[in-house]
Amino acid sequence: MLDKILNKVQTGELTIEEAKQQLAAYENLGYAKVDHQRKQRTGFPEVIYGEGKTPEQLIAIIDAIQEHDNDVLATRISREKANVIMAHHPACVYNETARILYHKRTLETSSNDNGYIAIVCAGTSDLKVAEEAALTAELFGSNVRRIYDVGVAGLHRLLDNLEEIQGANVSVVVAGMEGALASVVGGLVSHPVVAVPTSVGYGANFQGISALLAMLNACSSGISVVNIDNGFGAAYNAVMIDRLTHKSEK
Amino acid sequence: MLDKILNKVQTGELTIEEAKQQLAAYENLGYAKVDHQRKQRTGFPEVIYGEGKTPEQLIAIIDAIQEHDNDVLATRISREKANVIMAHHPACVYNETARILYHKRTLETSSNDNGYIAIVCAGTSDLKVAEEAALTAELFGSNVRRIYDVGVAGLHRLLDNLEEIQGANVSVVVAGMEGALASVVGGLVSHPVVAVPTSVGYGANFQGISALLAMLNACSSGISVVNIDNGFGAAYNAVMIDRLTHKSEK
Amino acid sequence: MLDKILNKVQTGELTIEEAKQQLAAYENLGYAKVDHQRKQRTGFPEVIYGEGKTPEQLIAIIDAIQEHDNDVLATRISREKANVIMAHHPACVYNETARILYHKRTLETSSNDNGYIAIVCAGTSDLKVAEEAALTAELFGSNVRRIYDVGVAGLHRLLDNLEEIQGANVSVVVAGMEGALASVVGGLVSHPVVAVPTSVGYGANFQGISALLAMLNACSSGISVVNIDNGFGAAYNAVMIDRLTHKSEK
Amino acid sequence: MLDKILNKVQTGELTIEEAKQQLAAYENLGYAKVDHQRKQRTGFPEVIYGEGKTPEQLIAIIDAIQEHDNDVLATRISREKANVIMAHHPACVYNETARILYHKRTLETSSNDNGYIAIVCAGTSDLKVAEEAALTAELFGSNVRRIYDVGVAGLHRLLDNLEEIQGANVSVVVAGMEGALASVVGGLVSHPVVAVPTSVGYGANFQGISALLAMLNACSSGISVVNIDNGFGAAYNAVMIDRLTHKSEK
Amino acid sequence: MLDKILNKVQTGELTIEEAKQQLAAYENLGYAKVDHQRKQRTGFPEVIYGEGKTPEQLIAIIDAIQEHDNDVLATRISREKANVIMAHHPACVYNETARILYHKRTLETSSNDNGYIAIVCAGTSDLKVAEEAALTAELFGSNVRRIYDVGVAGLHRLLDNLEEIQGANVSVVVAGMEGALASVVGGLVSHPVVAVPTSVGYGANFQGISALLAMLNACSSGISVVNIDNGFGAAYNAVMIDRLTHKSEK
Amino acid sequence: MLDKILNKVQTGELTIEEAKQQLAAYENLGYAKVDHQRKQRTGFPEVIYGEGKTPEQLIAIIDAIQEHDNDVLATRISREKANVIMAHHPACVYNETARILYHKRTLETSSNDNGYIAIVCAGTSDLKVAEEAALTAELFGSNVRRIYDVGVAGLHRLLDNLEEIQGANVSVVVAGMEGALASVVGGLVSHPVVAVPTSVGYGANFQGISALLAMLNACSSGISVVNIDNGFGAAYNAVMIDRLTHKSEK
Amino acid sequence: MLDKILNKVQTGELTIEEAKQQLAAYENLGYAKVDHQRKQRTGFPEVIYGEGKTPEQLIAIIDAIQEHDNDVLATRISREKANVIMAHHPACVYNETARILYHKRTLETSSNDNGYIAIVCAGTSDLKVAEEAALTAELFGSNVRRIYDVGVAGLHRLLDNLEEIQGANVSVVVAGMEGALASVVGGLVSHPVVAVPTSVGYGANFQGISALLAMLNACSSGISVVNIDNGFGAAYNAVMIDRLTHKSEK
Amino acid sequence: MLDKILNKVQTGELTIEEAKQQLAAYENLGYAKVDHQRKQRTGFPEVIYGEGKTPEQLIAIIDAIQEHDNDVLATRISREKANVIMAHHPACVYNETARILYHKRTLETSSNDNGYIAIVCAGTSDLKVAEEAALTAELFGSNVRRIYDVGVAGLHRLLDNLEEIQGANVSVVVAGMEGALASVVGGLVSHPVVAVPTSVGYGANFQGISALLAMLNACSSGISVVNIDNGFGAAYNAVMIDRLTHKSEK
Repeated sequence: MLDKILNKVQTGELTIEEAKQQLAAYENLGYAKVDHQRKQRTGFPEVIYGEGKTPEQLIAIIDAIQEHDNDVLATRISREKANVIMAHHPACVYNETARILYHKRTLETSSNDNGYIAIVCAGTSDLKVAEEAALTAELFGSNVRRIYDVGVAGLHRLLDNLEEIQGANVSVVVAGMEGALASVVGGLVSHPVVAVPTSVGYGANFQGISALLAMLNACSSGISVVNIDNGFGAAYNAVMIDRLTHKSEK
Repeated sequence: MLDKILNKVQTGELTIEEAKQQLAAYENLGYAKVDHQRKQRTGFPEVIYGEGKTPEQLIAIIDAIQEHDNDVLATRISREKANVIMAHHPACVYNETARILYHKRTLETSSNDNGYIAIVCAGTSDLKVAEEAALTAELFGSNVRRIYDVGVAGLHRLLDNLEEIQGANVSVVVAGMEGALASVVGGLVSHPVVAVPTSVGYGANFQGISALLAMLNACSSGISVVNIDNGFGAAYNAVMIDRLTHKSEK
Repeated sequence: MLDKILNKVQTGELTIEEAKQQLAAYENLGYAKVDHQRKQRTGFPEVIYGEGKTPEQLIAIIDAIQEHDNDVLATRISREKANVIMAHHPACVYNETARILYHKRTLETSSNDNGYIAIVCAGTSDLKVAEEAALTAELFGSNVRRIYDVGVAGLHRLLDNLEEIQGANVSVVVAGMEGALASVVGGLVSHPVVAVPTSVGYGANFQGISALLAMLNACSSGISVVNIDNGFGAAYNAVMIDRLTHKSEK
Repeated sequence: MLDKILNKVQTGELTIEEAKQQLAAYENLGYAKVDHQRKQRTGFPEVIYGEGKTPEQLIAIIDAIQEHDNDVLATRISREKANVIMAHHPACVYNETARILYHKRTLETSSNDNGYIAIVCAGTSDLKVAEEAALTAELFGSNVRRIYDVGVAGLHRLLDNLEEIQGANVSVVVAGMEGALASVVGGLVSHPVVAVPTSVGYGANFQGISALLAMLNACSSGISVVNIDNGFGAAYNAVMIDRLTHKSEK
Repeated sequence: MLDKILNKVQTGELTIEEAKQQLAAYENLGYAKVDHQRKQRTGFPEVIYGEGKTPEQLIAIIDAIQEHDNDVLATRISREKANVIMAHHPACVYNETARILYHKRTLETSSNDNGYIAIVCAGTSDLKVAEEAALTAELFGSNVRRIYDVGVAGLHRLLDNLEEIQGANVSVVVAGMEGALASVVGGLVSHPVVAVPTSVGYGANFQGISALLAMLNACSSGISVVNIDNGFGAAYNAVMIDRLTHKSEK
Repeated sequence: MLDKILNKVQTGELTIEEAKQQLAAYENLGYAKVDHQRKQRTGFPEVIYGEGKTPEQLIAIIDAIQEHDNDVLATRISREKANVIMAHHPACVYNETARILYHKRTLETSSNDNGYIAIVCAGTSDLKVAEEAALTAELFGSNVRRIYDVGVAGLHRLLDNLEEIQGANVSVVVAGMEGALASVVGGLVSHPVVAVPTSVGYGANFQGISALLAMLNACSSGISVVNIDNGFGAAYNAVMIDRLTHKSEK
Repeated sequence: MLDKILNKVQTGELTIEEAKQQLAAYENLGYAKVDHQRKQRTGFPEVIYGEGKTPEQLIAIIDAIQEHDNDVLATRISREKANVIMAHHPACVYNETARILYHKRTLETSSNDNGYIAIVCAGTSDLKVAEEAALTAELFGSNVRRIYDVGVAGLHRLLDNLEEIQGANVSVVVAGMEGALASVVGGLVSHPVVAVPTSVGYGANFQGISALLAMLNACSSGISVVNIDNGFGAAYNAVMIDRLTHKSEK
Repeated sequence: MLDKILNKVQTGELTIEEAKQQLAAYENLGYAKVDHQRKQRTGFPEVIYGEGKTPEQLIAIIDAIQEHDNDVLATRISREKANVIMAHHPACVYNETARILYHKRTLETSSNDNGYIAIVCAGTSDLKVAEEAALTAELFGSNVRRIYDVGVAGLHRLLDNLEEIQGANVSVVVAGMEGALASVVGGLVSHPVVAVPTSVGYGANFQGISALLAMLNACSSGISVVNIDNGFGAAYNAVMIDRLTHKSEK
């Protein structure tokens, strides 16, 4: 990258200011720098992490994004914040289970022949995280299949859905408590598994540590792990992997 | 208990000295008090925990036990210690995998119609702990079936042995790493499961914490847990449970 | 199990659809899969874990269970949720200390000659967990004796109730703080002890870790441990053990 | 899967025994069950985890694998064990840095137009883990580029190699201490990053916890994490991802 | 110090009472001892830590300070407490982001040729801590430059501001999550870096432990660390360092 | 003890019922067993731990205690609970800082020649715990001297009060944050020090763990430690020690 | 203290040099400062902590102590170091169980009417720590009674020795594993208990954390805790308490 | 920096290759990249961290450094490694206490009027870390004063050396166990304190965590902390601070 920019500066293709632009293409709101060229560079739009930001800050950031005709995707948005924001940005849609607020300008209709991401979750209590993952992946243009409430306590529920899981390009496995689902799925598929520990449980689950450690120590190979409750991160990762299936097409 | 002893003291059935004997029936070796009536009281002989004891101390304790014609059962005995002890007590037998040294006087031939304890273990590396459990249970007079190397990474190995596990009175499930085997077995049987986390693994397994937490948080019901690597404790517990099946016979 | 089903498929006893039913006998509510044949398979009805479910979800799950004439047992139900649910399901009964909501159709009158489970608890603050265990065991058809507030700080209170504890088939010992009660009871009885650490205490008890570690390291044998505050799990385990005493009758 | 097997049993295509074979295709060595059909099912051969196994056990497992003409790949093999094994299996090759012993029968010459996996590591002390990853990936048939000693303390070393990293299908980032390299690389590439925390460091690194936590909390998206020092697991995961790039070709 | 005082006592320069005054120069409010000579001794005024103190206690302490014409600087003051205090002390100023309440009597106009402290922060969510540091440093008389929202996920934002950071006498680097910014800045500057981990993040960040450990294990040299969220402490430290640049002038 | 009771039973001095009374002298309220002879046995009245008990339960326990003319001492009582209780028991006195509710029937005027306990505390924020200790000790009849706000950050404050601390029979040292005060006091006195870590602080103090570990590792000898924030336990311990000074008088 | 010294300086009773001597009465060996007046000041001789010191350093420190005719007490001395030291200092005595090397010049024959310290320990494996405590207390001139191997797993062993424990001025309770002995003893005596957790056990005992937490959370009052395995510290504390019984005699 | 290089490229002052050199000025040894221009850029030579490197690797790295006539400074070098290296590089000097191997070409005689760094340490066991700090600082050209064995258990030893500590530009405080020395020194000086926790101690010190947490929570201001046992890092930081005192001279 550096090489190319230096080359262009020497040949005059780029002025120094342009060269700097190429590396620093964000808008400075003072308390935040909004990155408008992120999608061009990485194939993903700038995503807003909603926790700890005021509705006012969120509205201003969305303003800045929309002025550049970019998609809006904000995670960890409470119902209360969503209501305030949607009063200013009525085009935004809110999904309460996934706690995601979004505005998708160009509907990338993902064709079915791309394959899909399987979002597998253990219990009803893991739903929020699973939906954060599923909706994120869909908004990023991947096909998604939801296989929910198939925890290992009732193994037949999982085996009954096995073929659908095995058919995916990549699985996102969401589980709390002892997180055994990741190991079991990992042993039954031959594609990468992104495991998401959730904070579901009580006592010695320590807000998700039990599931996190279990997943890091999974006896099956092919499993990697994201942070506790990080449905968004898992989806982001899975979409990156899913997109590789199209690579040779291009 | 107190009531009965007091009663007998009042009626003269017991002298005061006898009453004290009833509560304190051990031999004082100075550094250890050996309990010779333990088997009468609890149905289990005094067991020697070998870790941290010198061969000399172990020999002396075994001397004291044998003078009362009791069985010897010593756990966590290294091959080196075993050799020294067996030079003095040639009747003792040593099992290296289980790290158990024992001398069983009366061979309680356990009849097959009692049912059995299933000792289920995840991987070859859990063998030591599984064998400590299996041998302990056998020495205490229970029937044992070993179902080894059936970790969830290859679920078919477990399912293939399912019927034998389901037929047990109680299962001891031994697993390290993410300890998922306990949850999976717990969901497939309708008898109590005693789970033993092992310190097998590396990195974020933290010498067995990952498996311990997973088992404590097992999403299946009917699972209880003993200390990391505590094959003996699991077997002791399982034998107690197994013996209840004969209770109504008596 | 697999063997039998495959056999029946081959002989025509089972159609493929029936074979699948046998393994997957749940109703799919979308966010939850309700298992209506669980009682037949395991001897225990499907139990609802109330934490993190909305009253609406709980009502729908109970609807589904009741349509199959199964018993209802929901744990970790707050007074508020209970009120909403009972407005829809007036046959349900709520026990606030145990935080359990239930509807028992067939009153299995447990005969006294079965023996009983002793629920032993250390202090008044452990009452909630002890009652969750006691009521669960009773609803599953076991006899229960409550021995409460007998922590080791006043050993005479425990010794005075010793005979009743010693007479049980299995004990559930509930204690917070340093959890010493499990070790002491374990040393005085000759039946299995299921220990429940509670989060009672403050400072270096770390929400129950002190009691959990103490119980896992109990110097007495025959003790196994369930998750912190998991009165339900302990009772489930104890009932499984208690039922083994009738096994030879059948 | 279940569906298909049941179907074939009904139509007579499979006998019951054959159906069971399909689910359980391992050889039982007593202490270990060797899975000879693993490569057919998952595309990966059975891999031997060497830690805690005796040379004798390892030799026997390798015997069993070679009788089925499968490739041998054993990780965490010390120089001492390797020497003993190679005396029996002279065709095996040993790589001391990677601690891997292998015998590759069919040399899958990976063509360069497949793209490659970038193995990026922070410091010389992370070399063992990085090489375990690199060699594993190569043995599984992927192209690998090694970019070593590019930790963030000297950012210019990383930036100088940036283009090569950016060109990969997937990166494996290996780092100990504060593990910052994963975040920095994650922010500079648009493909998936598999992060491997290493136990390198001292004091408050707690044998790799500092790097593990840092990587789980990476502020860049697209990063997932495997266990501490788990170079093999990272490579396995990366190869699975890398293979997806050929999916549409088939 | 002891030596000098003893000398003066001997020569009569100091009475015993005066000698004691020199060591103990505080006012006793009963629940607090206010140190009025702290600025003379250390160059810094007594600072009030507001957390856990009632508005009434805070008002009384400020009363005591103002009677000696000292500056007021109170940290961790909520908006609610600030309002109550300012009703009594209208000369006080409140900065809500920094949660600081202050009254600066003598405006030490810091001349620009002194150099400056760079306050560098990773994300918008770290703002509170960064502002606590920045305002504290300004109130203590140092020049401050704020370089905010330059986390390593978008490295170009940092590189674009590098020259300003490199020009400082000392940097305060504020970051949560994986805290990688401290390592990266530390590798790019040749002055001391005071790193402040923040509790920003979720899941396995454990309220700032991930950033704390990362910073303690920073692979760059020249970094030292203060407590989680301790913006005040970092600024205090940085000002002490910044003042050394004037030492030889005096 | 056992010996004596058995002797008296034999000689007829005690009936069996009386013998049992001697060991079990409590009143059974169902949810609590109140120990009315505790003061005779241990020299301390039964103390009520208020946390987690309802006002109704507290009132009933106090009723039971008062019927036996015993003193009332209840700790961890909030202002709200205290108000409800005092409406029923107007003779009770409430100290809000110490969170103690008490009713002392016989005012044991402690004579000054007994010596005293020094309650030393580091900062204003440790006041609650220090006052719980001080009031408890006074209610148990010991003389108390309060030396507050003498943390090591301003060593002169401590040295100025040193003689008073050194004159005590025993010191209770209360400190949060880094808990250094215990070590420093321990090095300056020649009597036992009971150290109380408090949960005061933030970030890496982990609710008192920093102070707890510091005190357990104090480099000075003669220091022992009670639980975090356990002012009552420290006072109880200190009073036991203080009373030993009168032992030879009796 | 300060006051007195300042007074004497003013009146000429002390020169400045003498005043400084009073505060700093140690000999500087370069790597260590030996405190020869410690016994006069605190009633205890300077004690040498042997861990991590070379035999040469230990010999030199003992030389320095002996030149002032002070007693020698060195803890944590291995058999190997002891042999080297005793070759130079043949008057020294070594106790291997306690790992203590000492030379007591004046044999303080402690009269039996002083009362005694009870050293109570749970199991044979706690012996080293118990003996370190017992011998230390004896060398400091207290009477000691050893009550060993009375862990709560066999409660009758403890109850049989209860009277002797209850008769002490202070008890030191040494226990590993779950450390329940401290709570049980604390509930049965009315004198202070100093609890010493030991690192005895395995798995989830975490080198003594289980016992440490249990003791800090003991439900009995009157218990304070020292560091894991710190027999010396417990004895030091107990002797300080024991000496208070003579205070009023003087 | 970027700006300047781009400018020079545009003006032709730098060729692209030269521009790249400026950012990447290291020599690639394969397993390590040696940075020969580090001293020019940062004022500090490249330092070799010896742990985990073989003598052969160390010799090769030193070869590379010496070919550029740079100083050699290698930390964490054992006596064994040092002997091997010095056989090849006889000009190197080894300090065993500090575990440092060095070769200083140009003896920067530091003039006394620069002020000095005070290296303060608590006990003899902290010596290794203190010497690593002291020697590092001297090799980097700072004046150093050693104030050793002044832990807070004997406060007079510290007070006696107070003036020398107070006179420093910056203090490095090295302490294990409870780490109280940092707080006490921090409260007595008015310059920055760099605190180094050491792993000295046992039991609940957890290899230095007790001291680390204590120092992070120090109640005195002006203290920042480096990693456990990181004497080198503390010195590096202190030298950076010390050099600022000369800044205005230049």
